[in-house]
Amino acid sequence: MSDRLSAREVKRHKWWGWGLDDVTFRYDNKPAFPVLAKNKVGVDLDSQQPVVPDLSVFEIPAGRLPQEVRSGLTAAVGAENVIEDDEYRVIHSFGRSLPDLFRVRAGDFARLVDVVVYPASEEEVAAVLRLVLEQDLVLIPYGGGSSISGSVTPDVAEQRPVISLNLGRMREVVEIDDTAGLARVEAGVYGPDLEEQLNAEGWTVGHFPDSFTYSTLGGWAATRSSGMQSDKYGDIEDIVRGLRLVHPDGVAVTKPIPGRDSGPSVHEMILGSEGRLGVITEATVQVHRLAPVRQVIAYMYPDWEHGIRGMHAIARSTDVTPTFTRLSDGPETEFSLSMVKEPSSTKGRVAAKVQDGLFAYLRSKGWDTTNEMSISYVCFEGSKEAVEQQKALVKKIVKSNGGITLGAGPGAIYDQKKFDTPYLRDFLMDYQVFGDVCDTGATWSRLNELHARAYQAFYATQEEQGLPGFMFCHMSHSYHAGACLYFTFAFPYSSKQQALQQYYAAKGAVQQTFVDLGATVSHHHAVGTEHQPWITEDIGEVGTRMVKGLFADNDPGRNLNPGKVVSP
Amino acid sequence: MSDRLSAREVKRHKWWGWGLDDVTFRYDNKPAFPVLAKNKVGVDLDSQQPVVPDLSVFEIPAGRLPQEVRSGLTAAVGAENVIEDDEYRVIHSFGRSLPDLFRVRAGDFARLVDVVVYPASEEEVAAVLRLVLEQDLVLIPYGGGSSISGSVTPDVAEQRPVISLNLGRMREVVEIDDTAGLARVEAGVYGPDLEEQLNAEGWTVGHFPDSFTYSTLGGWAATRSSGMQSDKYGDIEDIVRGLRLVHPDGVAVTKPIPGRDSGPSVHEMILGSEGRLGVITEATVQVHRLAPVRQVIAYMYPDWEHGIRGMHAIARSTDVTPTFTRLSDGPETEFSLSMVKEPSSTKGRVAAKVQDGLFAYLRSKGWDTTNEMSISYVCFEGSKEAVEQQKALVKKIVKSNGGITLGAGPGAIYDQKKFDTPYLRDFLMDYQVFGDVCDTGATWSRLNELHARAYQAFYATQEEQGLPGFMFCHMSHSYHAGACLYFTFAFPYSSKQQALQQYYAAKGAVQQTFVDLGATVSHHHAVGTEHQPWITEDIGEVGTRMVKGLFADNDPGRNLNPGKVVSP
Repeated sequence: MSDRLSAREVKRHKWWGWGLDDVTFRYDNKPAFPVLAKNKVGVDLDSQQPVVPDLSVFEIPAGRLPQEVRSGLTAAVGAENVIEDDEYRVIHSFGRSLPDLFRVRAGDFARLVDVVVYPASEEEVAAVLRLVLEQDLVLIPYGGGSSISGSVTPDVAEQRPVISLNLGRMREVVEIDDTAGLARVEAGVYGPDLEEQLNAEGWTVGHFPDSFTYSTLGGWAATRSSGMQSDKYGDIEDIVRGLRLVHPDGVAVTKPIPGRDSGPSVHEMILGSEGRLGVITEATVQVHRLAPVRQVIAYMYPDWEHGIRGMHAIARSTDVTPTFTRLSDGPETEFSLSMVKEPSSTKGRVAAKVQDGLFAYLRSKGWDTTNEMSISYVCFEGSKEAVEQQKALVKKIVKSNGGITLGAGPGAIYDQKKFDTPYLRDFLMDYQVFGDVCDTGATWSRLNELHARAYQAFYATQEEQGLPGFMFCHMSHSYHAGACLYFTFAFPYSSKQQALQQYYAAKGAVQQTFVDLGATVSHHHAVGTEHQPWITEDIGEVGTRMVKGLFADNDPGRNLNPGKVVSP
Repeated sequence: MSDRLSAREVKRHKWWGWGLDDVTFRYDNKPAFPVLAKNKVGVDLDSQQPVVPDLSVFEIPAGRLPQEVRSGLTAAVGAENVIEDDEYRVIHSFGRSLPDLFRVRAGDFARLVDVVVYPASEEEVAAVLRLVLEQDLVLIPYGGGSSISGSVTPDVAEQRPVISLNLGRMREVVEIDDTAGLARVEAGVYGPDLEEQLNAEGWTVGHFPDSFTYSTLGGWAATRSSGMQSDKYGDIEDIVRGLRLVHPDGVAVTKPIPGRDSGPSVHEMILGSEGRLGVITEATVQVHRLAPVRQVIAYMYPDWEHGIRGMHAIARSTDVTPTFTRLSDGPETEFSLSMVKEPSSTKGRVAAKVQDGLFAYLRSKGWDTTNEMSISYVCFEGSKEAVEQQKALVKKIVKSNGGITLGAGPGAIYDQKKFDTPYLRDFLMDYQVFGDVCDTGATWSRLNELHARAYQAFYATQEEQGLPGFMFCHMSHSYHAGACLYFTFAFPYSSKQQALQQYYAAKGAVQQTFVDLGATVSHHHAVGTEHQPWITEDIGEVGTRMVKGLFADNDPGRNLNPGKVVSP
């Protein structure tokens, strides 16, 4: 056990965007990027000036914390862990959804949380929860604040004092059961911190969502997160075997035993509950020995359809068990190539020449190398022999589905860059360009139709709106029956007044396509408030009624993150 | 779609025991069995006379079905599917738990279901459910009637008319999605019928619980069943991807999409709900292509501890993925050997000689071949090459953990006999001997302690009771973090008056040990009423309260299989 961080040592986002203050997206070394930005969304990066947000220009409404509540919170966690600073309240009042980021930059501070509280133990969480129920307050658990679904954002109409409960001081690996491969971990631990503590003992959880650097174990469990290595390590519902939840009636404990068989699953009621049943304080997770060898190999298919056939063949094969499999469609491949840095070394220039030669060869074979090719990445882990054997088998599968193997070089580049994408969204917003994502789970039999229909829906909407736009997609998270499609889109909004309306039109068209085709409203971005318009189409009328009943029964006063998942 | 069976064509158990009327356990060709029975539980099979139950000696109370309800049921499903015969009512009033079997043989018919109804469609189920709610009746869904936890047994104190809803006419594979590997299947299909329909199209579900011949898909889902091949195919919660449940407010539908991310899982509330939320009418299940090669190989370890180390090494290995792995402890191995038939052919006699020679050799190596050796079975499926490769790897793992490979012969015998065990329990009861099981899930780190403590608890209880007894155990269902321990015990009760009390003392001592050591009250036999004494220790105070709230909210009138899982 290391020493507890103080509240102010807990890491936090910049107030207006993703992650660290001094990290931003740069394009000066990516010559193809401004060309793509100009062609696809009509933005001239060189002539336009980025906007730099400044918190001091805004008036920040004072918090509404009654003295009695302040005293109670201070008694529960200590004065230094009860923070009412403006910047803290701003940061904790918004997740990192596009509407949240747009609103925070616009100084739309109509309803901020009133206080940020940093407990250091389950007992302190319980004390805060008791106070919340006694005083009829609102409690919003806060992990990494990376929700893109509105899960940590208070309701603008909320009249009661709102507490944001930041779990960031609860970050310890409590215990590792080496024999069972299980680790008890406090819920507030961030991804990198968790892996660092476990790696030191030779273990890994293997959970790497895009938000990894700014998301926590408790947040993953509360929102049913999936990591990019879910093919091997499973989604968070496979990884988290036991939970501790501070609930209005006490601490709910689910045992970390595989093969549960004791009625309806309490564990699976807590997973995805987004703070509506209480506060997750601890999870027992499966851990795995670090693999001796890890390699990411890149492949190229002539187009999406060939790629999907290859991906499905890999998923179906009982002989190969990759750590992850990922396929970018034509537009995403084009986008990825635009992000390649200008070679700064002889080696890099040689590699660029090799790529030029390869593309010329593929064109001679009839491939369209502008925007049809689909790049794929597959990750292998294990002993040297197992990795070599699996690579050989996958190479064969790729080939028999019309693809070629590019090798470990581009794979390694992908692997290094994988957590950087969120910074790009902030950068684009500086230029009045919205960039966002929609993800869904679907069966293998519907993937191609869904892919085509989502594109149609997006571009038809943009045409109606009279706006340019650019969309691309990848497939990841393979399962027996299906996979996740993950769409990214970008467009310049026409004015601040119309911006969110234009955003919801575009995003809504894609989400509606998902549920219309029987896919899920989200594969791994939870419901929050942003996906609620489709929740009933996703889980059905009766399912919605069952979930509402669950929340009403456990939190009749609507004190626990009210309005999230389903409302009222 | 084949034609619907009529109600009377649906298969049913003999009224007093397991399965078909004309199938019983025989020991005349198993010379070691009566010796074991005499030594371990003091029963002289040759001198005692078995009891043959006779229904006609009992008075069967008339059903309490009001004419109005009868008319409503007839309108819903047709008169020929509303059966009030005595024998049908008796069969449907008891599962196949030991107390149920003891009571049914004793003519303990204080409360029988009043009618058995056979719907043929979701609409008919919905019509029956409407009637149940309108008239304040009690509805008990009935699949194969194989529950050993009391899940289909009406409460003796129930004053309202009780309907047993037999789903056996709803047995069709509705649709197979070849691309996604998903099959939509009506919930009333029995195991063998399901596999036959799927095998005809080249598919298998791979779910083979011990109750396979007398259990149904809907029953598996409603009780969180596990099959013996769960290592490869998963437990029923992994296999069933989508459900349709006729619920008081309509039909709840969970989408068969992998990677669910829409709040608390409605799907996982329905799984294990034992009829308390409504009637499961359909499930969408993962199906797999039939493996070209399937082999069961037997291994022998000098004792349980060596065997567990071998099993854990196989589970941990990322190189091998067996279909099942199973390890019998010393007493179970001794029991299995007692069940071997007397060789009736030259080949059989040669095999027996070979075994004698092997055992002599093992004794010369210091093994105790009487009751310490632990036999293990591992099943391999796949291409010929993959099976050979996996067999070689497992052989190596077994050897490095002190075991030896016996080969495919004993493995094949195990595989053929695997569904016969339930008949043995009825046979023993003819001799006033109780035989029953307790199963639990636990982590690898607790398996040996749990194994030892369960034995202590059982034998200490038998000593207190002044009764002989015999217990044995196997490990199956391997997971990353743990496995299932499955105990079987037998003892002669001293009198009919004391029989159930003696049974509950023995079983209760073992179950209590499970929860005391943090293991689950049951791995795959559900809760029903029999496991309720430990449900709160298993899922906790808060969890119990959450499950009670779920049932109360969805079924405020307690019309749906009341009293099961949690009570009230």
